[in-house]
Amino acid sequence: MSKETENKSGKRIGIVGGGQLAKMTALSALEFGCDIHILERKPEGPAMNLAGKTFIGDWDNPDDLMKLAEHADVITLENEFVDANSLAELEKAGHTLFPTSKSIGLVQDKYIQKQTLQEAGLPLSPFRAIESREEIIEVAKEFNWPLVIKTRRNGYDGKGNATVNSESEIDAAWEKLDGDNRTLYAEAFCPFVSELAIIITTSRNGEVATYPLVESVQKDHICHIVRAPAVVSDSITENAINIAQRAVVAIGAIGSFGIEMFLTKDGEVIINELAPRVHNSGHYTIEACECSQFENHVRAVLGWPLGSTKMVTPAAVMVNLLGQGHGSGQPAGFDEALAMPGVHVHIYGKELSMPGRKMGHVTALGETTAEAEKIAQAAADVLYFGVK
Amino acid sequence: MSKETENKSGKRIGIVGGGQLAKMTALSALEFGCDIHILERKPEGPAMNLAGKTFIGDWDNPDDLMKLAEHADVITLENEFVDANSLAELEKAGHTLFPTSKSIGLVQDKYIQKQTLQEAGLPLSPFRAIESREEIIEVAKEFNWPLVIKTRRNGYDGKGNATVNSESEIDAAWEKLDGDNRTLYAEAFCPFVSELAIIITTSRNGEVATYPLVESVQKDHICHIVRAPAVVSDSITENAINIAQRAVVAIGAIGSFGIEMFLTKDGEVIINELAPRVHNSGHYTIEACECSQFENHVRAVLGWPLGSTKMVTPAAVMVNLLGQGHGSGQPAGFDEALAMPGVHVHIYGKELSMPGRKMGHVTALGETTAEAEKIAQAAADVLYFGVK
Repeated sequence: MSKETENKSGKRIGIVGGGQLAKMTALSALEFGCDIHILERKPEGPAMNLAGKTFIGDWDNPDDLMKLAEHADVITLENEFVDANSLAELEKAGHTLFPTSKSIGLVQDKYIQKQTLQEAGLPLSPFRAIESREEIIEVAKEFNWPLVIKTRRNGYDGKGNATVNSESEIDAAWEKLDGDNRTLYAEAFCPFVSELAIIITTSRNGEVATYPLVESVQKDHICHIVRAPAVVSDSITENAINIAQRAVVAIGAIGSFGIEMFLTKDGEVIINELAPRVHNSGHYTIEACECSQFENHVRAVLGWPLGSTKMVTPAAVMVNLLGQGHGSGQPAGFDEALAMPGVHVHIYGKELSMPGRKMGHVTALGETTAEAEKIAQAAADVLYFGVK
Repeated sequence: MSKETENKSGKRIGIVGGGQLAKMTALSALEFGCDIHILERKPEGPAMNLAGKTFIGDWDNPDDLMKLAEHADVITLENEFVDANSLAELEKAGHTLFPTSKSIGLVQDKYIQKQTLQEAGLPLSPFRAIESREEIIEVAKEFNWPLVIKTRRNGYDGKGNATVNSESEIDAAWEKLDGDNRTLYAEAFCPFVSELAIIITTSRNGEVATYPLVESVQKDHICHIVRAPAVVSDSITENAINIAQRAVVAIGAIGSFGIEMFLTKDGEVIINELAPRVHNSGHYTIEACECSQFENHVRAVLGWPLGSTKMVTPAAVMVNLLGQGHGSGQPAGFDEALAMPGVHVHIYGKELSMPGRKMGHVTALGETTAEAEKIAQAAADVLYFGVK
């Protein structure tokens, strides 16, 4: 009655990480008859019950990575935190990894990421590595207040970020970010009017598929709403697409990557950051595009032709479902949400809800983003994670 | 490294059978954070690597069914061959089964199915139970030649059917169908001009969702092409929908059911047969409808509100991919098919191809069924199961 299955005819994809991004990738891969195997640190996780074989271990440990690799034709990742040097061991042993350890290395240290993008001539907020509290004062003289201080590694959803408005706030930021033990860098604060994002999939065969430019609304530093397509001028759209396409080339991307950008009040587009993986700003593609970011990621890392990124609807809006309290991973209000016409509800299947934890998302399609947002938001409003 | 997972917050669906219908149902259920557990006769099968727990056993054995049921909030089936009396044991033990054992009992013996539908006043070809070769001659006097002789149980895709054009063909049919050991019935041959089909989902809460009427083209008695929607007059469509809706009521259906019908040259619609499960004629709903037959089946058996059956495209065509030779379950021509714009390729992940075995399907959307069929057929033409 235990389970360890492999269909023995399809391609085997090893995924490092077993969260919702791995789950949605696995759902696409399974449609193609692939086998999915997963390495995670703990036995639970949204993708775990879609895997043939699950390996519990430390994803920074090359030995544990190697166990997964032995059962995979290609290895991919659902996060950028796996140590690039450990990943390089896989490649040295002859295993196939996409994105490559080199790309992950260029992205996972955000300071190196910014340097790489800057060297490629891409527009960024001014940034500088900092090694002491005093250096923050020096940087402020050049960039002006406020500054955003960030950890170079392992930051996400606002974790690892602190905004410093004046000298008096330095100590608090330094403590929050554990500056004595972690390497930090400083960025000039970008007074953006909106945040834009785009998913680009690059195949190991060189083919590139670019998804529509979207607008992403953050709440407490976490992606909250994604509106597809972004309602901006054609020249801004073209500029953003151009920047994003150059960014993935600079990183040597293979697979689906998410590129987050700021739009300034002067209509300038600058890169915020890049994720070397399928991205929250691309979840809308499951229902709204001919081929989703997940399906195209699978195609890309297996070297199969990419699918069309064309939207099958004029507009789509995704709203994230975050845990509001502690409780079950199954939401209250589920029946009510399902009864709303045109709502696509995705529940990740996490065992427990915690405040701020990503528990699922809803997507609605429409003739306009306003129409779609009304539907998606109404569903998100009745769904509640954490008992009710 | 073995696997036996359950997310512990979502609903647990036990599926009897682990083939492609279970797989596509599981893919929908997993999007909702459900757990899937499966009982199959053998460890391999398209759905096996999507299940948390897999039970290998005899699905006609109540003890084996009970093992699955202990881990499920609701049990459902991917085929109509599981003995209704064994299923009734589950219900007696307090487990929840949809469709019910009563519905399965009314469907799995095709003679009883026809009787039930006839009693509901639905149009059918004349039929009669037969117990000897001589009775076939008697029936022919009343219905005229040709007759279709069928096994009352376990027939599908033309297996268990024989057309008899004259008295001289009776012996061959009797041998083919093993008439000495199996119970048979005879039907008047229906000289249809086309075959129609429709999926109807009935929730355990009484809600009914009716999908568009489609045209289904069979090849060697196996579903080959499905064109959605069927291009017939409004009055034929209304009549077919009315008949199908009355049929599922007569059977006490809960879940997604497939109703196959014949259209005669006089524009009459008669029921061919009914399947108490998701059906090959509804695979197009994955891409073409707002909510697929699989998602609605999950909603129905869990008592959740049903989703919209509205098509998101003017037309869609599905073409089945059958094994052509013996070989791998992964097709030749896969790259070529994926490179075709607008093609959705589903590979079931069976270990081995065999001639006539259902290995996958392709779906294409379009402005017309002619346009969609051109795309889907082109993809099907390059895909080859069984080495090339």
